[in-house]
Amino acid sequence: MVTVSNTLVGTVTLNLALDITYEVPALAVGTSHRVSTVRQRAGGKGVNVARVAHVLGYDVLALGLVGGMTGELIAVDLFDAGLTALLTPIAGESRRSVAVVDTAAGDATVFNEPGPAVDADEWRAFGDRLPWARLGVLACSGSLPPGLPADAYAELTARARHHDVPAVVDAGGATLVASAKAGAVVRANAAELREALDLDDVAAGARELVGLGAAAAVITDGAAGMVAALPDGAWRAQPVEQVRGNPTGAGDACTAVVAAAVAEGNDDWPAVMRSAVAASAAAVLAPVAGDINLEAYRRWAPQVAVHEL
Amino acid sequence: MVTVSNTLVGTVTLNLALDITYEVPALAVGTSHRVSTVRQRAGGKGVNVARVAHVLGYDVLALGLVGGMTGELIAVDLFDAGLTALLTPIAGESRRSVAVVDTAAGDATVFNEPGPAVDADEWRAFGDRLPWARLGVLACSGSLPPGLPADAYAELTARARHHDVPAVVDAGGATLVASAKAGAVVRANAAELREALDLDDVAAGARELVGLGAAAAVITDGAAGMVAALPDGAWRAQPVEQVRGNPTGAGDACTAVVAAAVAEGNDDWPAVMRSAVAASAAAVLAPVAGDINLEAYRRWAPQVAVHEL
Repeated sequence: MVTVSNTLVGTVTLNLALDITYEVPALAVGTSHRVSTVRQRAGGKGVNVARVAHVLGYDVLALGLVGGMTGELIAVDLFDAGLTALLTPIAGESRRSVAVVDTAAGDATVFNEPGPAVDADEWRAFGDRLPWARLGVLACSGSLPPGLPADAYAELTARARHHDVPAVVDAGGATLVASAKAGAVVRANAAELREALDLDDVAAGARELVGLGAAAAVITDGAAGMVAALPDGAWRAQPVEQVRGNPTGAGDACTAVVAAAVAEGNDDWPAVMRSAVAASAAAVLAPVAGDINLEAYRRWAPQVAVHEL
Repeated sequence: MVTVSNTLVGTVTLNLALDITYEVPALAVGTSHRVSTVRQRAGGKGVNVARVAHVLGYDVLALGLVGGMTGELIAVDLFDAGLTALLTPIAGESRRSVAVVDTAAGDATVFNEPGPAVDADEWRAFGDRLPWARLGVLACSGSLPPGLPADAYAELTARARHHDVPAVVDAGGATLVASAKAGAVVRANAAELREALDLDDVAAGARELVGLGAAAAVITDGAAGMVAALPDGAWRAQPVEQVRGNPTGAGDACTAVVAAAVAEGNDDWPAVMRSAVAASAAAVLAPVAGDINLEAYRRWAPQVAVHEL
């Protein structure tokens, strides 16, 4: 008899997007611009999680909803990125985002299309095709498309637990609280935590989420680092150095590390937090969300300071 | 024996685009925006010509080059608009343009992707499939994609004449001059004329284009109206009233009327100019390039003043 140790990281992105980046020499409102460079790739927070987990060497399955031609472009890009994907078709057209980067000023002006509505049949089809027997973890990230209930991630968490698969949920607001109650490992940033629980102390908030039922609560607090609370302890981790760069995707890098650790059954939370903080900081160094600077990650991970609270 | 009078208006758009319009409540550079309304449709100057000719009741065949998923979206939109299209596939991905309309300020900020390069085989394939026997006119509009020579429209004009099909070319610069020499009916605006010939007088410029070989030269001059020169005469036409609105596409509406008249063999140039000036002004009243206000067009056309020069 062979025992298969399954560490496949399943990432859920219900609001998949095609992220288009235009570079212009100088953005002037009310005028026409010739775009000098066009880049586009699949986006959405769950895709960032999948990319980082993939870069860190984990097997990944990208799960999500796609529709229309934009959905096809998203699927093609996931393939090109080497990410195995299991995508559920929807009737609506997947959304795009356009980021216009002013190369002189160095800033980005972003336009996010509204996402397509998802109906009950599409949501059921998505849930019914999840390959539970293959998954080591189900990591759900980002906002929900119109048409889905706020407890959609809590529902996935409950189904995952039914199949003995742990769930990680990165969300804010009512979705965060519902997922904690359903027993997920929850991740949020400090602002989302404050908004969801109406309190200022990050450690107290993380502990409250565990009190509600979360298997663990990981709260990122920007340059201040990260707090993790579990039923049997809580820790604070601080980055090795302050980094400047692109903070978009830093939280997703943290989620990727936490999800991979959960998939592996790694209970050494101080070690997980060292990796998660290093990956977040290494994501800030990378110019595009979903990438991390691997060299910086490897240098920083052993050096992150973790204190029990 | 049946004589078929063929008045099919063939429009050539070598730089077809998918024009995307985003409405945002207020555009703030360097920030993220939730787009409130997304519209998209096939664009490019030749598409505007095709749309206006179609609205005016002429049979239209939209000819152009398309590639990739964006090319498919362009083809679908032409179909949805009721425009028969004969599109030649290219390896490159068709370009998009994104116009961000600030609904509070009322202005538009536009980002034009560079067009895909067209190679010699693709250009030959486009030329070889032109259905000369069915065409009453070949109307070529707009800039040329990378990879094509500046005399691409002149080459089409020569081939059209070989098949006894008249050509109309709307272009500037070297393309305008080459097309005139090849015997096309040329249309340009006053700025393009000045740039191409380095002279200020619109009537003199129109006559010079005819002197180079143009079958006719129609020069639009914004609110000042239009000048047309032929080997046997020249006329100036002035709009009935000054109109405020969206001037994009006004010149294309003029080209549509001129091309349809050429297809019909209509030699009554003062009458053609009355219709062309009215259509241009009626295009300014329409919010989107490629539309005209038909009621205004019908009211104005009989009233336009035309003077022989």
